[in-house]
Amino acid sequence: MKKILPLVTIALVFALALPLFAADPLPSWNDTASKKAIVSFVEKVTKPGSPDFVPLPERIAVFDNDGTLWCEQPLPVQAFFALDRLKALAPQHPEWKTSEPFASLLKGDLKTALASGKRALIQLLMATHAGMTTAEFDQIVKDWIATARHPKTGKLYTDMVYQPMLEVLAYLRANGFKTFIVSGGGIEFMRPWAERVYGIPPEQVIGSSIKTKFEMRDGKPVLVRLPEVNFDDDRDGKPIGINQHIGRRPIAAFGNSDGDREMLEYTKAGGGARLCMLVLHDDGAREYAYGPAQGLPASKGGTFTQALYDQAKQQGWTVISMKDDWKKVFAFEGK
Amino acid sequence: MKKILPLVTIALVFALALPLFAADPLPSWNDTASKKAIVSFVEKVTKPGSPDFVPLPERIAVFDNDGTLWCEQPLPVQAFFALDRLKALAPQHPEWKTSEPFASLLKGDLKTALASGKRALIQLLMATHAGMTTAEFDQIVKDWIATARHPKTGKLYTDMVYQPMLEVLAYLRANGFKTFIVSGGGIEFMRPWAERVYGIPPEQVIGSSIKTKFEMRDGKPVLVRLPEVNFDDDRDGKPIGINQHIGRRPIAAFGNSDGDREMLEYTKAGGGARLCMLVLHDDGAREYAYGPAQGLPASKGGTFTQALYDQAKQQGWTVISMKDDWKKVFAFEGK
Repeated sequence: MKKILPLVTIALVFALALPLFAADPLPSWNDTASKKAIVSFVEKVTKPGSPDFVPLPERIAVFDNDGTLWCEQPLPVQAFFALDRLKALAPQHPEWKTSEPFASLLKGDLKTALASGKRALIQLLMATHAGMTTAEFDQIVKDWIATARHPKTGKLYTDMVYQPMLEVLAYLRANGFKTFIVSGGGIEFMRPWAERVYGIPPEQVIGSSIKTKFEMRDGKPVLVRLPEVNFDDDRDGKPIGINQHIGRRPIAAFGNSDGDREMLEYTKAGGGARLCMLVLHDDGAREYAYGPAQGLPASKGGTFTQALYDQAKQQGWTVISMKDDWKKVFAFEGK
Repeated sequence: MKKILPLVTIALVFALALPLFAADPLPSWNDTASKKAIVSFVEKVTKPGSPDFVPLPERIAVFDNDGTLWCEQPLPVQAFFALDRLKALAPQHPEWKTSEPFASLLKGDLKTALASGKRALIQLLMATHAGMTTAEFDQIVKDWIATARHPKTGKLYTDMVYQPMLEVLAYLRANGFKTFIVSGGGIEFMRPWAERVYGIPPEQVIGSSIKTKFEMRDGKPVLVRLPEVNFDDDRDGKPIGINQHIGRRPIAAFGNSDGDREMLEYTKAGGGARLCMLVLHDDGAREYAYGPAQGLPASKGGTFTQALYDQAKQQGWTVISMKDDWKKVFAFEGK
């Protein structure tokens, strides 16, 4: 008996410990520097007694959405949503046939429609995103996202999310992090599906917004969406939005474009261990190749400039190469 | 042996079950209708299979702060903070000696100073709450709240929190609720101490705010507080703020004044089991007596009108009588 007990104990210890070591939390990542940066950061900040240990409530990680968590090409998903809404609403708006940018948009001529720049985009957003209650808009988004499909892959947009990033979200949460979206996209466009797709609840979604008005309709209080910009959650808006919504500086930040620069700067400046990462879209075969950093083609969507790339190298941010660092981009690959 | 085992099991079951039943989660509440309303609501929404069952992510409870979680008399705490800041900054602002509302405020003549109403209040807030970085303001609030004392009791303001409400916060959280503050007070005035005092982390504090600006100072990114209102989280601002920050309708809401009416209406309108409660300050002996509902004296601070009281009765909201429902108002009582 004396000899057997320790053996049983050792066997038990191995049996219990094995799953912890055997399960790779990031199976869609190659064993390159990017994966190592993530794992070593998480181990450092979660190890009690480590000089880099971060208490649970301060483990805040922020993620851009378009191009960081899901595909933003050939257009950001919300643009497809707006165009579909415009077509659906067109019969009620005969005047759109003769007024820009609507006439060109309805003909599918985005180039002419958006030639005037941001103004046309805001007109499109206001015409398609305002005028209903927040509850109605929530349902409109849910209905659309349940069926709308990516023009190239034919997949649901919610299947066009990056499998490696889903693993990072889950890995961070398993280590006590609260994960937030901080996106230039519409806050109420993301919330209806972010919990199901990313495991991120509505109160942890930060984005651009329009103003709302409290109103009684048939004796019931509702919030009506107004055609007026409330907050632009891009560039310097990202740290401002983080401060407004979270009120605490993140210790990890993930982006993929110049619009994320200030968010990464703000995260990095906090002192202590920090993880700042940028996704470089250098995989034209499995997704899209665009930059223009590192000689990649320019893009209509997110813009990863060479200046941002150089700043990343200089400040110790990690650039994720989709081509080299990711075993798999989408969950549906190879199925 | 056959008889002993079941006995041991029964004893074990009792030993394990007893603490669950024995511990009253709301020991500072009398056994009146208010306490029963809280307990019966929590039991209903947390019981699997119950028609009123609410899944974990949807268990959202919102609390007003001034007059609901802590004392707002003879003035809201943030007003004392602003006045102390004004005195501290006065040597750098000799012009305040001859310009209103500052001259009267520095003399302690609030009546003259605030005669012009909201405009004077905003001038006071901007002069004392803007111009520094968010990190600097956080420290200023922490330093002040660590030592400033209530003029009547001589207690720290953070000891002037209502013990029964601390118990409700803890009870709800123990039952899977996320608890949020939704206050007309400054979001960045509450965050520096809300986690320590209420167990509510910064990302669950919603309040009024001023605009901020992202800026590089000595190569470090900071957010500078600007003398410009960003959001007024009072009355119809409360449901708007809830939608902006939480993006989900609460199932429980606690307030104490007309400024909370829309928040309670919005919470109640969601359908399903709802808990809407209003604290009535009818205990002049242990705290302050003010309304003017139910013939209580009018107040400079929060206003609980008779119309709000009547609406509460009509809509099935519960009015908490501090005098009758609370065994104890403050933790320091009887010590």
